[in-house]
Amino acid sequence: MRDLDVVEFRPSPEQYAWTFGGVAPVARIRPGTVLELFTEDCFAGRVRSESDLVSEVCEFPFLNPQTGPFYVEGAEPGDTLAVHFVSIEPARDWAASTTVPLFGALTATHTTAMLHAPLPEVVWIWRLDRVARTCRFQARTGDYWVDLPMDPMHGTLGVAPANLEVRSALVPDAFGGNMDTPELRAGVTCYLGVNVEGALVSLGDGHARQGEGETCGVAVEAAMDSVIIVDLIKGRPCAWPRIESDTHLMSTGSARPLEDAFRIAQADIVGWVSGDFGLDVLDAYQLVSQAVEAPIANVVDTNYTSVAKLAKRWLPKVDVYDGAHHKLSEMAAAYRADRGATTRPLRTD
Amino acid sequence: MRDLDVVEFRPSPEQYAWTFGGVAPVARIRPGTVLELFTEDCFAGRVRSESDLVSEVCEFPFLNPQTGPFYVEGAEPGDTLAVHFVSIEPARDWAASTTVPLFGALTATHTTAMLHAPLPEVVWIWRLDRVARTCRFQARTGDYWVDLPMDPMHGTLGVAPANLEVRSALVPDAFGGNMDTPELRAGVTCYLGVNVEGALVSLGDGHARQGEGETCGVAVEAAMDSVIIVDLIKGRPCAWPRIESDTHLMSTGSARPLEDAFRIAQADIVGWVSGDFGLDVLDAYQLVSQAVEAPIANVVDTNYTSVAKLAKRWLPKVDVYDGAHHKLSEMAAAYRADRGATTRPLRTD
Amino acid sequence: MRDLDVVEFRPSPEQYAWTFGGVAPVARIRPGTVLELFTEDCFAGRVRSESDLVSEVCEFPFLNPQTGPFYVEGAEPGDTLAVHFVSIEPARDWAASTTVPLFGALTATHTTAMLHAPLPEVVWIWRLDRVARTCRFQARTGDYWVDLPMDPMHGTLGVAPANLEVRSALVPDAFGGNMDTPELRAGVTCYLGVNVEGALVSLGDGHARQGEGETCGVAVEAAMDSVIIVDLIKGRPCAWPRIESDTHLMSTGSARPLEDAFRIAQADIVGWVSGDFGLDVLDAYQLVSQAVEAPIANVVDTNYTSVAKLAKRWLPKVDVYDGAHHKLSEMAAAYRADRGATTRPLRTD
Amino acid sequence: MRDLDVVEFRPSPEQYAWTFGGVAPVARIRPGTVLELFTEDCFAGRVRSESDLVSEVCEFPFLNPQTGPFYVEGAEPGDTLAVHFVSIEPARDWAASTTVPLFGALTATHTTAMLHAPLPEVVWIWRLDRVARTCRFQARTGDYWVDLPMDPMHGTLGVAPANLEVRSALVPDAFGGNMDTPELRAGVTCYLGVNVEGALVSLGDGHARQGEGETCGVAVEAAMDSVIIVDLIKGRPCAWPRIESDTHLMSTGSARPLEDAFRIAQADIVGWVSGDFGLDVLDAYQLVSQAVEAPIANVVDTNYTSVAKLAKRWLPKVDVYDGAHHKLSEMAAAYRADRGATTRPLRTD
Repeated sequence: MRDLDVVEFRPSPEQYAWTFGGVAPVARIRPGTVLELFTEDCFAGRVRSESDLVSEVCEFPFLNPQTGPFYVEGAEPGDTLAVHFVSIEPARDWAASTTVPLFGALTATHTTAMLHAPLPEVVWIWRLDRVARTCRFQARTGDYWVDLPMDPMHGTLGVAPANLEVRSALVPDAFGGNMDTPELRAGVTCYLGVNVEGALVSLGDGHARQGEGETCGVAVEAAMDSVIIVDLIKGRPCAWPRIESDTHLMSTGSARPLEDAFRIAQADIVGWVSGDFGLDVLDAYQLVSQAVEAPIANVVDTNYTSVAKLAKRWLPKVDVYDGAHHKLSEMAAAYRADRGATTRPLRTD
Repeated sequence: MRDLDVVEFRPSPEQYAWTFGGVAPVARIRPGTVLELFTEDCFAGRVRSESDLVSEVCEFPFLNPQTGPFYVEGAEPGDTLAVHFVSIEPARDWAASTTVPLFGALTATHTTAMLHAPLPEVVWIWRLDRVARTCRFQARTGDYWVDLPMDPMHGTLGVAPANLEVRSALVPDAFGGNMDTPELRAGVTCYLGVNVEGALVSLGDGHARQGEGETCGVAVEAAMDSVIIVDLIKGRPCAWPRIESDTHLMSTGSARPLEDAFRIAQADIVGWVSGDFGLDVLDAYQLVSQAVEAPIANVVDTNYTSVAKLAKRWLPKVDVYDGAHHKLSEMAAAYRADRGATTRPLRTD
Repeated sequence: MRDLDVVEFRPSPEQYAWTFGGVAPVARIRPGTVLELFTEDCFAGRVRSESDLVSEVCEFPFLNPQTGPFYVEGAEPGDTLAVHFVSIEPARDWAASTTVPLFGALTATHTTAMLHAPLPEVVWIWRLDRVARTCRFQARTGDYWVDLPMDPMHGTLGVAPANLEVRSALVPDAFGGNMDTPELRAGVTCYLGVNVEGALVSLGDGHARQGEGETCGVAVEAAMDSVIIVDLIKGRPCAWPRIESDTHLMSTGSARPLEDAFRIAQADIVGWVSGDFGLDVLDAYQLVSQAVEAPIANVVDTNYTSVAKLAKRWLPKVDVYDGAHHKLSEMAAAYRADRGATTRPLRTD
Repeated sequence: MRDLDVVEFRPSPEQYAWTFGGVAPVARIRPGTVLELFTEDCFAGRVRSESDLVSEVCEFPFLNPQTGPFYVEGAEPGDTLAVHFVSIEPARDWAASTTVPLFGALTATHTTAMLHAPLPEVVWIWRLDRVARTCRFQARTGDYWVDLPMDPMHGTLGVAPANLEVRSALVPDAFGGNMDTPELRAGVTCYLGVNVEGALVSLGDGHARQGEGETCGVAVEAAMDSVIIVDLIKGRPCAWPRIESDTHLMSTGSARPLEDAFRIAQADIVGWVSGDFGLDVLDAYQLVSQAVEAPIANVVDTNYTSVAKLAKRWLPKVDVYDGAHHKLSEMAAAYRADRGATTRPLRTD
């Protein structure tokens, strides 16, 4: 597909961004560009064995390194970015997880402040079998192990925030960011409202897999080789990140308490259904109430994230966002077909 | 299967219970009894057309009529009841849903108190096709309709509460009750801790289907013909309702805010995995964090309900609760096979 | 004041109630009756020294013993009870406080479920000087002590709940109950909506004093000799408990999360101001926003409790509830004046 | 007092900051400098009559203009800033309040997302009598009015955030910011942990008075002439903003849900008491539980803010922060005494 504009970017250590907003773009791209990217894991690659405790080897705020940001030409506040995930592949044959002192859903934290001492800090190194597509849990106490399916995803994808803000790469909010939803896997398109010129999109925090809620606060954290296509939808805003797969529409909400994250996502998808599909608001409320899935993303980050997921087959036939997902899926197929012919080949290591 | 003890019970209008606890049992049963039951819908059958507004035809607290309670012989505090769902079949060819003033996730309520006027009160009558196993959404404004799959479930299943309490049938808590989780479908076994002698178990609030979260507060509400088997596990308590299917273990938590419901369910399943499967607590925390699903049940009731769902295949081979689910599934199979031979045939209408 | 109807009641151990609703009244009283009551402390008097750990000497659910309930003649659903506190006096020269495993605001609990071990269980015995009106904190580690002012109050005051429910005496909700607000002190009138015939009012859980929020979950718990006057306001409902002092109007809300308790109390007082004082709802919203105090009651119980407190001097001159507080205060003054002449003298011990 | 370094600063319109962090300092000051400042109201002075609706005359994110930031020489991460409020005086004879669409505690918001239409947008202009020290509420409907006492305070005081972040001036968090607590009045010292070199402290959002919780989301908003003294405490961090008055110590917490804000503030003051006053942690927990006041600050902003307030007289005699509050209070007295002699006189208008 001779028309594809393909850019490869593998950041050097000093090129990572640690925030959404507030950093200069690493590159300017045109809408429709295919990005072949390397993303480091959330620990900046510093947790490599069971003896690498986060509290010793990592340094706040240097967590969740972002690859990017990319300046998307023509993007202005009021537009929407469409980011299609062509592929997300673990870059190494291992991944790491850990407990982090005063972080996670089942521990006192800095905000759910208590008088308990932190839970013990323990690291698990997961072996990844990239052929069998599995990742191996090995208990630290006893010898139990089990292979779980890999289901690679990005914990973070975001643009520069609105309101002149700069947010840590650990934060999920209306600009996207650290949503930590397993729904951000290869094959989907994520819609993000543009807040500043150029949008300044970045991503990182790859997970070989993650449970819903990310209970202990840390997934199976992996460096990733990912390919995305970044497109631009002019003149249409997007209040909260939305995701489209071949089969589903999804709205996300990030807030505390968790019911507010739920409310945001549900109200957004009710508005989506009534806005784009022609149903009355209360009819949309009723249909969503009976048909929606509500997979929890995270209950550990600065904001908690909830997803409202609705099968397209229950809705009138409408191509949302002018068929952006379909168009980008076709570009992805063309990219995969022509991959050997691209002048800048995908990095493999 | 000559050994099955089968009891049919179709309550007369004055026989319904409106609370968990506080009412005399309708019958005493032995552990292992098969119950063939009729349950009325949450509106006590009073919402039958689009003009039957809950605020006009229903009378608080006469909602969520319970079939039961049943006194289980030998059940004592510290034991656990195992309730297996053999079948849940809509008893009529229609079901009802509605908005209810000041109730639901996307409206001000009596507790999320605001200065807004209530949303409009609208009724939807859903047509059920019990052969095709679908239920039809018909918009009230415009002519859009769509058939969704039926996925029958019970919104309520509970025992008498601890601490001398009597709770409305609208409440979910540690005793079960109005959990409103789609996971309570045919084929699963629900474990409930016994708080009073005889346990006093009841159920109701059938849904032809329900979205996760029950966003508008009301599912596709249907009268049900349901068959359950009630068994007793002596000498083992159960702090929060658990559900076992052929493939998954599930813990539930009911609380507000929603993150507390999530915490209860997640902590319970971590404790289940470490308690019954021999993993260290932190190993269980790690495995659950990467493997769990967290389907939201309801974000509308007195307490919100969250489910932690873990595939058995990721765990060591252990038959929890002495294989109760397997045994009850076999009894259910035998019941279905012998159904024509039971002296008290299942009511069909 | 020859017209006062004075009843003394000092429960024997088996006469305590442990719930709101669900128990037979200990006596029938006419509206306007003065009740001279003894209330045992929340531990049922079992924590008497530093070695009396709640987990060892107390037995759930036998906490927060209630003196009552009293059947108020003529009280029907839709009416409001007015309970005036004439006096609240510690019955002993000591009081007790403690940490309770998995209970309190700064610890994991059964609902804010975590993987931490409980905090240590420690008892503090406070010495009360009923002449100087102080209570002495004595540190358990080191020798620091300090005398705090006594400010006696009742943690619980409630009626039988609506919706056929029976609630533990540890629960605060729309029926009152375990609100744990320091505002429930001598001199105030508390308004409670009647849910069942006779109202079935009871009280207990005396505190020699309490911080706002009752952070560790337990106040300076004291048996009390209390005198109240119970009156009845016919034909006027009361959705949430309200309190009137000589200077302030107060609304209470009990819910989780805490912002919902805040919303209930604030919305109620906005409604009170617009309903009884003739302001437009938005004008009331504005005035309340600038003038209200919002003392937190408890952030530890089954529901958290928030109080909205508004000085009467900012409002138009209106005697709410037909001047019930003024009338009851005059009765209280008459009672105190005539106390020596009452045929059933106040018990002192 | 010839040693006082006094700086006056009255920003021109383009000199306001709209964020904490992310903007260049307007001036460098030495520790101990007295700042005579003008702060514009939260609306940037654009709401001046009942017809000036926020949605029409204001432009996001240009709300809560900050006077500053000031670079404090020698301030480094790990230090604490001590900001003493010498005086806070309304700069005009009127102030404004309003409802704001989808903002406030008793309305659906962008995060507590619902299907309700916003509440009506109404403006109240309050007349300030700076001699009598009152502010007049005048109802918009009907003719009720009442004079409330002025109690001037600053809604915002903050430093640049940690973690490379830049936050909107509407946000309260660990860096201070939009805490909206009436406790930030003249005579107190506020302690703020330094996150970046120079600290970059700013303030704004003056309120002629405010109810606890700031229920409608907007206080009696006023431009202010304020005098503060900014001092530096080297080598001691401060996790959350603390406030010291002549009589009380206060900790603040800002988070959602509101119980987390409460937990932060309470845990911080328990740690303060055990850390600086030599009590065991559990003894401190007990003493705080019985002695603390918990005035709510706001339940409307991005984070809710709770204050834990403890009378110094209940604590061992200790001068916290090396007596900073006492020293600054003496400097304030000296400043007031010498005010006529300063070369740069306080602006009055």
